[in-house]
Amino acid sequence: MENIKKPLILVTNDDGITAPGIRMLIEIARELGEVVVVAPDSPQSAMGHAITINNTLHVKEFKEHSHDHKEYTTSGTPVDCVKMASHEILDRKPDLCLSGINHGSNSAINVIYSGTMSAAVEAGIEGIPAIGFSLCDYDHDADFDAARPFIKTIIENVIHNGMARGVVFNVNIPKAKREEIKGIKICRQANAYWVEEFDKRTNPYGKDYYWLTGKFVNDDKGEDTDEWALAHNYISIVPTQYDLTAHHYISELNTWDFGN
Amino acid sequence: MENIKKPLILVTNDDGITAPGIRMLIEIARELGEVVVVAPDSPQSAMGHAITINNTLHVKEFKEHSHDHKEYTTSGTPVDCVKMASHEILDRKPDLCLSGINHGSNSAINVIYSGTMSAAVEAGIEGIPAIGFSLCDYDHDADFDAARPFIKTIIENVIHNGMARGVVFNVNIPKAKREEIKGIKICRQANAYWVEEFDKRTNPYGKDYYWLTGKFVNDDKGEDTDEWALAHNYISIVPTQYDLTAHHYISELNTWDFGN
Repeated sequence: MENIKKPLILVTNDDGITAPGIRMLIEIARELGEVVVVAPDSPQSAMGHAITINNTLHVKEFKEHSHDHKEYTTSGTPVDCVKMASHEILDRKPDLCLSGINHGSNSAINVIYSGTMSAAVEAGIEGIPAIGFSLCDYDHDADFDAARPFIKTIIENVIHNGMARGVVFNVNIPKAKREEIKGIKICRQANAYWVEEFDKRTNPYGKDYYWLTGKFVNDDKGEDTDEWALAHNYISIVPTQYDLTAHHYISELNTWDFGN
Repeated sequence: MENIKKPLILVTNDDGITAPGIRMLIEIARELGEVVVVAPDSPQSAMGHAITINNTLHVKEFKEHSHDHKEYTTSGTPVDCVKMASHEILDRKPDLCLSGINHGSNSAINVIYSGTMSAAVEAGIEGIPAIGFSLCDYDHDADFDAARPFIKTIIENVIHNGMARGVVFNVNIPKAKREEIKGIKICRQANAYWVEEFDKRTNPYGKDYYWLTGKFVNDDKGEDTDEWALAHNYISIVPTQYDLTAHHYISELNTWDFGN
């Protein structure tokens, strides 16, 4: 007699509902709870914490995959998806929100550009324990299966332990075969950054335009960073908060002269 | 003989280059340094830290205002504007980045949805001291002049004192007459949030659509918060960081069982 209610798990992402990464995450989530998927109808990478306020939002049931759980697409951003799920689509608050698996890294400073992580943060703000997963491999046919048991372990831990208010998990997975993955490490966000390069071109009508490109630079060699963990084939978990206050700096600023 | 070089000040925003808020900020900045403006060609509110990677970017010189400084528009987000300014438009790194004055509050959790603050954060990541300014008044004809001497004082302080690496300022200005403004307060981000409400409608062809609306809820009554300061007619400064690591939570997570 199994009477324990399964957790209600909201799954979303930023690559769109048909991306291989979310399909894998749905499979794993279905082993652990009752799953509802609400994801963008098209790719929304690099949307940061964008929300749709100057345009209308549409929701559609998505039936392409044969399944016995519900899937929906929205015309909005990942953050819109979480808001729509919590406030329109679901009849109760989810017990857990999983976002991803993103096609590409969201380690270090990438967390702030990431639609995947914004969905997780939005869930966190709404009091839902949340995890964003990203695989450090941009290939559409990347191997999302390699980390499967580790992903399951992380989700099980969160279901079992809960999560502190004000925190969500940023999980990054190295590009590695299963037998090469060394385990899971709790990390801090590496102090790494992008050096932008704009690829300037001229269109057939003589008008200049640019593509944003760049080089990722990591001068932070700390062995407690997500970058170190990933480079050494560990899965990194950075507990990520959305109180952005630099509390340590407040007392110094109180010595400044604002003429008060 | 005045030989001290004026600081190079980059001014941007998320409401677009023609918004009254940025025009006021440009006026103040011109009293304090050499100004270059790089701002979106159209409103980009609520864009969070979005960047443009799936589309091309365009830059145009903007000559509508008669002035002896340079202004440019880009087709991108506020973050794109800062990246374009630093890496394509300017021939040296700006000494300061000012973003705003936003039409509407970016206090409390609003900081993470804010294009205004994302531009400031982007500048911070690139090592440029940065301040985002927002006025708690959504009216297009809001009184941006009331806080003018306070804004100038804040900028002068940053030029004089510099700013710690990893931190930018989130400045919010109450909707008040000049004589009502009580001064400037260093604050922490209030733990307030939005309760979403979706306004569901049906279009003339029978298809449902939604507008995102919501109610701002503040249960955090701390007198050290930005919400308290603004409610009491103070200008709030929250030092804001982009290392999102919840450092305080790492030791607890290291007690979890990940099977390592």
